[in-house]
Amino acid sequence: MVTVERRYCAIIEYDGTDFLGYQIQAKGRTVQGEIEQSLKAVTQSTVRINGAGRTDAGVHATGQVIAFDVAWRHTRLDLQRALNATLPSDIVISSLRTVDPNFHPRYSAISRTYQYTVVNQECRPVLQRRYAHYVREPLNVVAMNQAGKCLVGTFDFASFGKPPTGSVTIRNVTQALWTVNHQQFMFEITANAFLYRMVRKLVGTLIQVGLGQLSVGEIQEILEARDLRRSAPPVPARGLSLVRVTYPKDVWGTP
Amino acid sequence: MVTVERRYCAIIEYDGTDFLGYQIQAKGRTVQGEIEQSLKAVTQSTVRINGAGRTDAGVHATGQVIAFDVAWRHTRLDLQRALNATLPSDIVISSLRTVDPNFHPRYSAISRTYQYTVVNQECRPVLQRRYAHYVREPLNVVAMNQAGKCLVGTFDFASFGKPPTGSVTIRNVTQALWTVNHQQFMFEITANAFLYRMVRKLVGTLIQVGLGQLSVGEIQEILEARDLRRSAPPVPARGLSLVRVTYPKDVWGTP
Repeated sequence: MVTVERRYCAIIEYDGTDFLGYQIQAKGRTVQGEIEQSLKAVTQSTVRINGAGRTDAGVHATGQVIAFDVAWRHTRLDLQRALNATLPSDIVISSLRTVDPNFHPRYSAISRTYQYTVVNQECRPVLQRRYAHYVREPLNVVAMNQAGKCLVGTFDFASFGKPPTGSVTIRNVTQALWTVNHQQFMFEITANAFLYRMVRKLVGTLIQVGLGQLSVGEIQEILEARDLRRSAPPVPARGLSLVRVTYPKDVWGTP
Repeated sequence: MVTVERRYCAIIEYDGTDFLGYQIQAKGRTVQGEIEQSLKAVTQSTVRINGAGRTDAGVHATGQVIAFDVAWRHTRLDLQRALNATLPSDIVISSLRTVDPNFHPRYSAISRTYQYTVVNQECRPVLQRRYAHYVREPLNVVAMNQAGKCLVGTFDFASFGKPPTGSVTIRNVTQALWTVNHQQFMFEITANAFLYRMVRKLVGTLIQVGLGQLSVGEIQEILEARDLRRSAPPVPARGLSLVRVTYPKDVWGTP
């Protein structure tokens, strides 16, 4: 019996703490490497995966999207459970479905959403220490949101990151908002795509606004300068998580 | 200049994952051991601490209370910051004040509150894996709360745990409630005191109710049996956290 190869799309969740990043490398533990190893163990064949975004070392994900082609004779849920049983405890496939063979997690994506968590209190956090950046001095969330508003739109973000390939640094940011829950400050940002380290440099710069070190007007000046040296250094990877990737509805094909 | 010794009371938070428990032991890493080591480094003297509850290996705390006597010539905030600077990343002193010399974190306490977190979904959790127990089969929270109601009151809880010392197994439970937030089930229970492993055995038994393996009426029977073999095995320590210890108002003394 011949089983036809199909394209599968999965939403994956991982704790980035103990990974050198998403993308496979010659040496060291990566998310892609672990998933491909698990696919090999389950399907007994070499399967390459494509991901929506190449998250850095230490960056987490609750909504990373991957796709791969396999010939699988059992159910979709069997495949998901078999992969989750072989994956390490810091990665899980939370959703799995078949998609149109033309679907590509990166090229088909319309937008990406990241969240960055900051704990703002006298003491360093303990239970959140792997998933949040810690700022002791009081942050002014109103100023941070005023500054964040300047970033919504289609701009040249050259001051906030390098493009992964090629030279275009124009990006379309559709949302950039801080919300506060007790001592936890959470920044959510959506764009068609992001430059290298863009979210972490934006958050670093907005924190300077929150601390009163930069004015809202200066954010505008930094953006217009198109000079990478003008923005703040990136905040630590541990606070960052890729939470959502969106696609045109019809790209998903029939299940 | 002579500095007078005063009694300090602190609220501490810890990630129990990498501890053999709260209480100091001849060998191995404990919460008490780490704090006493930090007090020695900061005050240059041997200081013993008393805690409100001896949490087991793997159990967390956001509201553990400790007390100790030291002669400290600087401010209270200086002491807190010096201790937090020397404590490992999985323990923090979130609050520190001076108290009446008669205050004892365990003997002065009126009640303790614990929380137990269960993730109820198809896939094992990743970001919460150190802080939650995972149950795949759907849980019926209405039944779990009906069963929980049977536990509120003053009863002999011999079916659910051994007393830490002596023989009395009567405890007064004032609250036992499950709340649900998306896939997260959180059980909060308050009592004057708890028996050894009582919360974990109660949660294990209530989960059996939630899975339809036990009826609400059977909880009543198990309670009345006063037989440790009748209740479910304890659920894993990782889901448990000591969140609050309360005291009579006047016991805190003047700051």
